[in-house]
Amino acid sequence: MASRPLLTDDKLSPLAREVFDDIRATRGTDYINNFWRALAHDPETLKATWERLKGLMGAGALDPLVKEMVYIAVSAANACEYCCHSHTAAAKAKGMTDEMHNELLAVIGMASQTNAMATALQVPVDEIFEV
Amino acid sequence: MASRPLLTDDKLSPLAREVFDDIRATRGTDYINNFWRALAHDPETLKATWERLKGLMGAGALDPLVKEMVYIAVSAANACEYCCHSHTAAAKAKGMTDEMHNELLAVIGMASQTNAMATALQVPVDEIFEV
Amino acid sequence: MASRPLLTDDKLSPLAREVFDDIRATRGTDYINNFWRALAHDPETLKATWERLKGLMGAGALDPLVKEMVYIAVSAANACEYCCHSHTAAAKAKGMTDEMHNELLAVIGMASQTNAMATALQVPVDEIFEV
Amino acid sequence: MASRPLLTDDKLSPLAREVFDDIRATRGTDYINNFWRALAHDPETLKATWERLKGLMGAGALDPLVKEMVYIAVSAANACEYCCHSHTAAAKAKGMTDEMHNELLAVIGMASQTNAMATALQVPVDEIFEV
Amino acid sequence: MASRPLLTDDKLSPLAREVFDDIRATRGTDYINNFWRALAHDPETLKATWERLKGLMGAGALDPLVKEMVYIAVSAANACEYCCHSHTAAAKAKGMTDEMHNELLAVIGMASQTNAMATALQVPVDEIFEV
Amino acid sequence: MASRPLLTDDKLSPLAREVFDDIRATRGTDYINNFWRALAHDPETLKATWERLKGLMGAGALDPLVKEMVYIAVSAANACEYCCHSHTAAAKAKGMTDEMHNELLAVIGMASQTNAMATALQVPVDEIFEV
Repeated sequence: MASRPLLTDDKLSPLAREVFDDIRATRGTDYINNFWRALAHDPETLKATWERLKGLMGAGALDPLVKEMVYIAVSAANACEYCCHSHTAAAKAKGMTDEMHNELLAVIGMASQTNAMATALQVPVDEIFEV
Repeated sequence: MASRPLLTDDKLSPLAREVFDDIRATRGTDYINNFWRALAHDPETLKATWERLKGLMGAGALDPLVKEMVYIAVSAANACEYCCHSHTAAAKAKGMTDEMHNELLAVIGMASQTNAMATALQVPVDEIFEV
Repeated sequence: MASRPLLTDDKLSPLAREVFDDIRATRGTDYINNFWRALAHDPETLKATWERLKGLMGAGALDPLVKEMVYIAVSAANACEYCCHSHTAAAKAKGMTDEMHNELLAVIGMASQTNAMATALQVPVDEIFEV
Repeated sequence: MASRPLLTDDKLSPLAREVFDDIRATRGTDYINNFWRALAHDPETLKATWERLKGLMGAGALDPLVKEMVYIAVSAANACEYCCHSHTAAAKAKGMTDEMHNELLAVIGMASQTNAMATALQVPVDEIFEV
Repeated sequence: MASRPLLTDDKLSPLAREVFDDIRATRGTDYINNFWRALAHDPETLKATWERLKGLMGAGALDPLVKEMVYIAVSAANACEYCCHSHTAAAKAKGMTDEMHNELLAVIGMASQTNAMATALQVPVDEIFEV
Repeated sequence: MASRPLLTDDKLSPLAREVFDDIRATRGTDYINNFWRALAHDPETLKATWERLKGLMGAGALDPLVKEMVYIAVSAANACEYCCHSHTAAAKAKGMTDEMHNELLAVIGMASQTNAMATALQVPVDEIFEV
């Protein structure tokens, strides 16, 4: 359960409603996921977060699917349950195949393993890696 | 400084030497980075880690550069200094442009922000995200 | 479900009972939350933890409500589900308004975002920040 | 060392220069700290991050100093070296006394301790904490 | 709920079936826990992970029970719900008494507390600790 | 560099001096490591932390060396540079051999790997693991 209520459409402030309208239009679906309903108590943060996300996760220097996979990687390392679920769903919707998902998981696991070992050993950074 | 010495080539066990030979052949460079020198005290873990890494980070369902960027994302979330440096260097060597790096950093930041907010709020997972 | 049973009042050791009595008296409620029931298997750790918490979270150089908000911030960054819930409830009981909660969440998100970016970039510490 | 160069003033794009001007005007100092110089490679992220930070960290529902202390708490939990240094300096500049710093550190330590224990035990959330 | 289905025995590839057979033979039980069923979508990662785990967690320079307790410690610090549960169960099966569990939890808590304080203060490493 | 000065012996309050005396007597060395010098600004937290540590890290239900290894594991997962260094030194002083260190590092790496995969997949806890 959330530590505060998820706002239903009839409880939204005008600014939050505007953001929800834009989420619906941008995504082409009427469904608003719980994260936005939890954020809607603070319409300005809702708006700032949504607009930054929308601007960032579309086409750019990186493919939108690559960005969703990066999001999953960060979410796993941060142990964010909600984010692992929501961004795995988003990555599948953007075309992540089972093979890609398998490989992504293996890389996340590998990185976590070598991260922990490098940190435990406090391996000094090689001079050639510094700019 | 490392919490144990970095092994120089003349101190290697035969198994560790074999792994170093393979790292050099695979990467086409004589340079062995510090992580492997720190791991070389334990030749079996060195071998298992290198072989898994080599198998995973080459061509597959995901592009090698995408995998390096996923590695950076995990390393940033895990606050691994060594890994942020070494995998940023590796990603650049595999073709990450400044524009791609910029966008990667922005996604890592965005994901960390929404991760923390979703966790602080304990947003419940939407039913539609569950398999 | 906990990875060990939550102790009910009739299962407490004399030392654990003493601590529970003090929790009840200090908080002015009969309710003992699950964290203490899980810790009660180890009465000495229960006592040490409760006494340190009681001494620390009351009035001092910082306002008790400020300390609860710091607790929420740490709990979100550590992805502690139980702690996000229990300290959000405690902060509300100590007077955290919706506006304060909104701003707290936004700061937690902002800090997480810039933390991840500073770490990914391995930004060197400015000399003026060092003592 | 950073994993990419810190931009000096003569290398800034027009948009980055505008942001630096605003940082200088807002803070009343000519000094630009390294984080912004590292971000300046990506002027749009620089601008978005700075404007969100400026809007959030000033007066609001929470005291600016409280927000700096929350920032330190998140940074410690995320093990962000740069952020611990820069926000400790900022909190001192906003009036954090030694007594406040001491108590803040004690709360951060206490929260981290009980976070880890609650997570290791997987203590179930009390019903009374749910909204 | 998992973000992908747990594979039942009738859905396994031949390689995944071989691994499951080995898990059953090694552990002397027919029960396969959910982690392996979730990994079975990627038989090669399943096999590599299981074989590394089997080789590592048995008798060696460290006692198998000590290794399970180290596993719990890492899992708590990483906030991995599944891993806290499964490795606490495994440690109990290998002989962890209540007294040992209590002391383990206290050490995990203590370490997390001093970790956070050392990081917040950015305590410099003593020269005598460096190799 | 620390974010506040390390207190030298001539700057200690009477209570901090008492604690330093006890650290010296308990450890049989005149050397006081930096963590305690950084904490000495807050003599009460210094005393509470030292006494809890002293009580916990000696002989008990777990071997003192096992507890140092658990400390290293938590410190690696929390990315605490200072703690990785100081507790690796402490574990060696208590008899950790190279073989034990190697195996400890491999377990820490393995746990971090499977933690990240279990979290990314959000594997549901098996009923048999619940108490």
